[in-house]
Amino acid sequence: MAFKLTDYQAYDFANRRHIGPSPQEMAEMLKVIGFKTLDALIDATVPETIRQQEPLDWGRALSERDALHHMRDVANKNTVLRSLIGQGYYGTATPAPILRNILENPAWYTAYTPYQPEISQGRLEALLNYQTMVSDLTGLDIANASLLDESTAAAEAMTMAKRSAKSKSNAFFVDENCHPQNIAVIQTRAKPLGIEVIIADPDTLDATAVFGAIFQYPGTYGHVRDFTNQMDALHENKALGIVIADPLALALLKSPGEMGADIAVGSTQRFGVPMGFGGPHAAYMATRDQFKRAMPGRIIGVSVDAQGNPAYRLALQTREQHIRREKANSNVCTAQALLAVMASMYAVYHGPDGIKAIAQTVHRRAARLANGLEENGFTVEPAVFFDTITVEVGALQRTVMQAAVGEGINLRKVGTTKVGISVDEMTRYDTIEAVWRAFGIDRKATRDAAYRLPDASLRTSEYLTHPTFHRNRAEAEMTRYMRRLADRDLALDRAMIPLGSCTMKLNATIEMIPVTWSEFADLHPFVPKNQATGYYEMIEDLSDKLCQITGYDAISMQPNSGAQGEYAGLMTIRNYHESRGDAGRTVCLIPTSAHGTNPATAQMVGYKVVPVKSDEDGNIDVADFRAKAEKYADTLAACMITYPSTHGVFEETVQEVCDITHEFGGQVYIDGANMNAMVGLSRPGDIGGDVSHLNLHKTFCIPHGGGGPGMGPIGVKSHLTPHLPGHPEHDDAVGPVSAAPFGSPSILPVSWAYVLLMGGEGLTQATKVAILNANYIAARLKDAYPILYTSKSGLVAHECILDTRPLNEAGNITVDDVAKRLVDSGFHAPTMSWPVAGTLMVEPTESEPKAELDRFVDAMRSIRTEAQAVIDGEMDPENNPLKHAPHTVRDLVGDWDRPYSREQACFPPGALGVDKYWPPVNRVDNAYGDRNLVCTCPTMEDYAE
Amino acid sequence: MAFKLTDYQAYDFANRRHIGPSPQEMAEMLKVIGFKTLDALIDATVPETIRQQEPLDWGRALSERDALHHMRDVANKNTVLRSLIGQGYYGTATPAPILRNILENPAWYTAYTPYQPEISQGRLEALLNYQTMVSDLTGLDIANASLLDESTAAAEAMTMAKRSAKSKSNAFFVDENCHPQNIAVIQTRAKPLGIEVIIADPDTLDATAVFGAIFQYPGTYGHVRDFTNQMDALHENKALGIVIADPLALALLKSPGEMGADIAVGSTQRFGVPMGFGGPHAAYMATRDQFKRAMPGRIIGVSVDAQGNPAYRLALQTREQHIRREKANSNVCTAQALLAVMASMYAVYHGPDGIKAIAQTVHRRAARLANGLEENGFTVEPAVFFDTITVEVGALQRTVMQAAVGEGINLRKVGTTKVGISVDEMTRYDTIEAVWRAFGIDRKATRDAAYRLPDASLRTSEYLTHPTFHRNRAEAEMTRYMRRLADRDLALDRAMIPLGSCTMKLNATIEMIPVTWSEFADLHPFVPKNQATGYYEMIEDLSDKLCQITGYDAISMQPNSGAQGEYAGLMTIRNYHESRGDAGRTVCLIPTSAHGTNPATAQMVGYKVVPVKSDEDGNIDVADFRAKAEKYADTLAACMITYPSTHGVFEETVQEVCDITHEFGGQVYIDGANMNAMVGLSRPGDIGGDVSHLNLHKTFCIPHGGGGPGMGPIGVKSHLTPHLPGHPEHDDAVGPVSAAPFGSPSILPVSWAYVLLMGGEGLTQATKVAILNANYIAARLKDAYPILYTSKSGLVAHECILDTRPLNEAGNITVDDVAKRLVDSGFHAPTMSWPVAGTLMVEPTESEPKAELDRFVDAMRSIRTEAQAVIDGEMDPENNPLKHAPHTVRDLVGDWDRPYSREQACFPPGALGVDKYWPPVNRVDNAYGDRNLVCTCPTMEDYAE
Repeated sequence: MAFKLTDYQAYDFANRRHIGPSPQEMAEMLKVIGFKTLDALIDATVPETIRQQEPLDWGRALSERDALHHMRDVANKNTVLRSLIGQGYYGTATPAPILRNILENPAWYTAYTPYQPEISQGRLEALLNYQTMVSDLTGLDIANASLLDESTAAAEAMTMAKRSAKSKSNAFFVDENCHPQNIAVIQTRAKPLGIEVIIADPDTLDATAVFGAIFQYPGTYGHVRDFTNQMDALHENKALGIVIADPLALALLKSPGEMGADIAVGSTQRFGVPMGFGGPHAAYMATRDQFKRAMPGRIIGVSVDAQGNPAYRLALQTREQHIRREKANSNVCTAQALLAVMASMYAVYHGPDGIKAIAQTVHRRAARLANGLEENGFTVEPAVFFDTITVEVGALQRTVMQAAVGEGINLRKVGTTKVGISVDEMTRYDTIEAVWRAFGIDRKATRDAAYRLPDASLRTSEYLTHPTFHRNRAEAEMTRYMRRLADRDLALDRAMIPLGSCTMKLNATIEMIPVTWSEFADLHPFVPKNQATGYYEMIEDLSDKLCQITGYDAISMQPNSGAQGEYAGLMTIRNYHESRGDAGRTVCLIPTSAHGTNPATAQMVGYKVVPVKSDEDGNIDVADFRAKAEKYADTLAACMITYPSTHGVFEETVQEVCDITHEFGGQVYIDGANMNAMVGLSRPGDIGGDVSHLNLHKTFCIPHGGGGPGMGPIGVKSHLTPHLPGHPEHDDAVGPVSAAPFGSPSILPVSWAYVLLMGGEGLTQATKVAILNANYIAARLKDAYPILYTSKSGLVAHECILDTRPLNEAGNITVDDVAKRLVDSGFHAPTMSWPVAGTLMVEPTESEPKAELDRFVDAMRSIRTEAQAVIDGEMDPENNPLKHAPHTVRDLVGDWDRPYSREQACFPPGALGVDKYWPPVNRVDNAYGDRNLVCTCPTMEDYAE
Repeated sequence: MAFKLTDYQAYDFANRRHIGPSPQEMAEMLKVIGFKTLDALIDATVPETIRQQEPLDWGRALSERDALHHMRDVANKNTVLRSLIGQGYYGTATPAPILRNILENPAWYTAYTPYQPEISQGRLEALLNYQTMVSDLTGLDIANASLLDESTAAAEAMTMAKRSAKSKSNAFFVDENCHPQNIAVIQTRAKPLGIEVIIADPDTLDATAVFGAIFQYPGTYGHVRDFTNQMDALHENKALGIVIADPLALALLKSPGEMGADIAVGSTQRFGVPMGFGGPHAAYMATRDQFKRAMPGRIIGVSVDAQGNPAYRLALQTREQHIRREKANSNVCTAQALLAVMASMYAVYHGPDGIKAIAQTVHRRAARLANGLEENGFTVEPAVFFDTITVEVGALQRTVMQAAVGEGINLRKVGTTKVGISVDEMTRYDTIEAVWRAFGIDRKATRDAAYRLPDASLRTSEYLTHPTFHRNRAEAEMTRYMRRLADRDLALDRAMIPLGSCTMKLNATIEMIPVTWSEFADLHPFVPKNQATGYYEMIEDLSDKLCQITGYDAISMQPNSGAQGEYAGLMTIRNYHESRGDAGRTVCLIPTSAHGTNPATAQMVGYKVVPVKSDEDGNIDVADFRAKAEKYADTLAACMITYPSTHGVFEETVQEVCDITHEFGGQVYIDGANMNAMVGLSRPGDIGGDVSHLNLHKTFCIPHGGGGPGMGPIGVKSHLTPHLPGHPEHDDAVGPVSAAPFGSPSILPVSWAYVLLMGGEGLTQATKVAILNANYIAARLKDAYPILYTSKSGLVAHECILDTRPLNEAGNITVDDVAKRLVDSGFHAPTMSWPVAGTLMVEPTESEPKAELDRFVDAMRSIRTEAQAVIDGEMDPENNPLKHAPHTVRDLVGDWDRPYSREQACFPPGALGVDKYWPPVNRVDNAYGDRNLVCTCPTMEDYAE
């Protein structure tokens, strides 16, 4: 190793850190596939006709330190004041152990949605804690495992009430004291569904005229009211009552359940989750037992495993997880798992005593603040409040608010003569004094005040009674609890998660670092724009780059999930047609191969779904497409297609399909789920798309967080730009789809870091290697499992579908058996039975090194060999390692009367010896769990054997 | 739960987070011990005579958020410039995955020193990687697992050369180009040992006159010289040659081994470890095979386990880990494990290609910088350099340095007319341009320059050839590797580590957060004082509080380990006596019960160790003490005692012992190892101590890091203040003991946070609960294991000694068997065979909740039952779960022909079911490893079964 100049780039993030295979490994893999160069493989895979003309280019890719340095500079342009704006977002103290051991810990943030319960028991327990917490606080029977934000949760509650209420009314009552963004999102959602929204004072409710009503509790201006009378009236008229409730207030106040509410929704942000300029946070929904099957979103339940031991899993999956196409009522699929876990841990950390003490302090400080103002002659409203007051300031509104800013505090503009103030967990005495100074009052706040809540408003019921909320609150105990849960799960920090269509690529540490900087984490979504200069700069720069990547002209960051992106995209199309007087266009063509969210979304915007056939290769039947387009020429609104197709194929006819749509007056929606096969090679905007959503949590590295957060911004062509979702606070012609203007902006640094670090060249190379990795797996497994849907040259795009149906036919070995057996080798199963029942869809992504791909191949080939032994009668059809998978340590300890060895059971190829992952439970019985639905923490007795 | 005012303090860190048992648990525990109140227990435990008069008080304890806020304010008073000062400290880019997954991950930072190899295989592998890296880069046969800092490593090398060289000379040659702090620490160390230090130009070396010589490579002013001739001359004269080498430079330059050096030392700071205002970082030492048994510090070696599988463990433990009392040559025991792990991971992350590329870039940018200066008429020295140059600026030295500061850059003051500049990994083109501007040069640096190193100086040998440095460098692979290693180990984040005398208490997350703030992490130790205002404020405030806690008048933060603290303390006493013309006082009285480092340290300062008897209860024999003091009345320098004693007892005679010492002109050194039993109750400065060291990594929450960092500041009475260690850069009368003025200041925020969060009351309560927890364990185990050394009332202090010798006598069950069997229950063993062979010393600390104590008690009682079965002949004397412990998953998989069940083997009481910790290896064979010493990574073939 003499001193000759090396050309090794030590800081090449794209090729050294993000992309898994080394150059030498790539050469070996190309040989297996039968290509000389990566470009030759790409040329054979991606049709010439759709390739983009210009390479992506925004200058040199940054090194990790330069990227961090740049992001630090931009972050510093944000100004972090204490925001007492309220309106659904509050300062909160994230406990340090939760920050470090959950939010910043890859064991939690790189996990996938817990569809495979055997490798998800840790986060399932945390989410069950969350449901129990919500159920307790709201006084309702059952809660889900979170929704996207309070506003969309409110809109979901409205549609759930519509589905569930026996009232035939088409009108929905909305308390005028709801937060403005909640009202706005409800209105957006109601419009295409033809629901009439009545916004008024709760005292004016005419329960005979509505199918449901929603109330904010406490109200946006602070009012604490009891809605029992309204609930009674609604029930008398077969309508449903909904309360949007602040969970911290519920620690002191009578619960929605005790008022008779049927549904409660709200945000758990203030349970330790940073405001993040609007998100992500976990919204909750709870309801009465009788409505549980109408509740959207994921629900964690308790079942048993094959040995009869208690085990958690997603309940009622068949109902909602695999959204049923034309019959769908909601397109919700993403939750906010990571944030729900944080909120639940905050409750575990503080326990009911701590939560109550925090709520009391918040209330008594708000009272102290109000007293001080009143004693100095100001008029404070309302008389009864929890944490929020408004103060009459007349013409001096602007002056007072500016003075507050001078004191480092943001107040809320209420009407033209008032300011709103919301006290939170972070409000100290010096904060109160600073507020007073903004009102010209110079005094000391040295103690909390007496309550301003009458006895009748107070809660008498208990909450957080389960032992999990009463564990010893020493940090030693808390830390170990979080570690134990993390260790039960399998996430990207231990193994590849080859989930087709989910793009579980590397979530690089460097990308996560800015997320928890105070300058990104601690901004209220409605701060004055000049306090968020850094955010605007980041969003603009990221949008510019995403436009270049997609070929679109504008981006809206508002949708905070992929499904939300679809919805926002179709709403944009709808707004566009309407603006042209073309409101009659309501037909949406969707290929039968589409993801279930597509038709569900179309229904949400009031579109009629018209299915288009696929041929036997899974491609769109162009003739049928043309026929349908012609048939609905006058009413064609849009088509929704996925590219590359959900079968993982670059269809050569995509441009023709787009042209047909345009020819008949429709707009083209291209689903961006498979964008990881396109970046740098092909642009949806070039091949005919008018709108696409981008799953930033897939292609652009936002971690899945165990089932959320997600981000689903949409790109549009310029003619659609005026029709993008509006600002949730403004009275835009076009309504908002999410609570916050930019959805979940505090995770945008992840995607921004990614594009800065990769550069155009690196992103393009990543796409090529994603295709290489998928083809390598296909090549190495094709003799063991038929590969469905290859191109004419026998190649796949960035994922491949392995057919396990022959094993089922010949040996009754199901796709489930294969998936669970993979756990024994330390793998999360590929996507099961989608898009084709009985198959596994594998998407390795570009981030997996060859050794990990080979480990997966070894595991899959070994399973094939075991299956053959069953088929050949060499192994018992039931008593074999496939049927008993996954195996636990407990299996090893007990008697062993199986016809295969312990060694074969537990150390199949792929298992990592002493580093093997051990699932904590055997195969989970889903049917049992759905028959015996338990969705709150089981009592300790339930664990007794 | 009506709305009555709760007095629950949600943010009470001391009682809610740090202290383990809840109030209710404490009541239950007191009942078991037989006391009504905690104070009653304390009164019965801690002698009235030594109780402190005033409670600790520095105002209200801060909440976590207020403490963080305050520390943020103070941190912001530090100014972070780019320091090109060099002198052994360099800017470096800590890879984000290493930052998050090691430095900020409790699985790594809360681990203990790997004395129990079965639960330490992960960090042992990482440290073996470190040794391999050092051995490769230096070109020497064997390396240790790190030393405290480069300067102390250099001093250790000197004394090692003294031990090993056949030359009878008493003189040691020091290259005048060594960093000033290295020269200063060598001089300090040499003085009491009577070694003559010759500081001169290497070309003037008279090898006949010395036992050894040490050279800096590259030199402190940048010179790159070949010391081959010097080495030859030394060897001819039976003297040893030592090179202090920069590991990054060694990636390009001929290695010390190739020059013929016998020993190499240096700092691995620039391998990804932040400068931290001086530390902590890992220094290294490597040597030739023939000298390996003379090498100080810990060495990791490869052995086999009971099944014959390869396993790592500390090699040659009997030699160095249990420092032999009067024969000790060095008192080194702490390493810098966490930092060594980071440096080794940096090498794994970059690999040889990356390390070489970084070294080349550093060199070529330095050349670019030099060229630019020369082209503008400046005289640059030396002609041949790696990264450091000096520039002649005449009378404008101050002007140029100020101009540089104006550009955000610190340069080094060299003499009165030069400035020094060291280029590092963080130096960008704009950094070079800024330096040029400070010299009045306006030009662009757009590329690196050609080499300024002649061919003869270049390295031709390879390094980092082991596969571990050639693993795929994708972050996915790196992250998984770090996770796998972490999972093999058992640390505080999973279980109590009840190590007597080591005080493994909670390392709260909040305390760790400021450590990695740039304002603390990125300061060079020799920046102008006005850039470190925050550091000085923190150090002053922490010192004030430590003075109040200990009853001393001043604190020196310089010692960077406990043993260093002892050394600094005795040096202070030595300086004091010398200053009074009392240099003849060289006798040090040490009870036989003392920790082995005490006599080792006394020897290091040239003191004669006179042992004092202990009575059968382990207490100092006061009569003997007086007799010895009288006997050595004219030469008595000091006594060294530990309080409470190493046997865990509050000796009532401590004041008498101190009085006797003073009566005969000696100074009292009270070892602070057991300070956790005293804080708030008793002060060493009050009971007669003149000096104490404090283990901040024990009592004050700095995590053990798997075997370092530590911090051992000393407190002294005012008469000793002028005699404390001097500044490493200044020409103080009293020399320094460490390389940096404040030892390892970047971890001081941990201890500072702790005292701010606890307040005086909280700290006092912690001490009481530490005593409660120890007495609870003693009470619950005393019928199973005799408790050694209780007070008259049958109580212990903060730890208790469990006697397992009866089991050995009756059933050949050794203390090792008990310790290893605890692993099966998921525990790290207590301190083994110290201070009494065949016993276990248990120190639960205040941080462990009752449930964890009970789990430990259950495990210990079950072991006792198993031992009884062996004693009673019911179990085979060899083939039993105690002798086979610990059990691995592999044991479960294979054939089972043992007379006890798999269940009994693997799930004894305490094992946490599905959350059980599984050791990756069976019991490790230490003797085999010492017979077959392998201290670099084994080849992959060695792993073949």
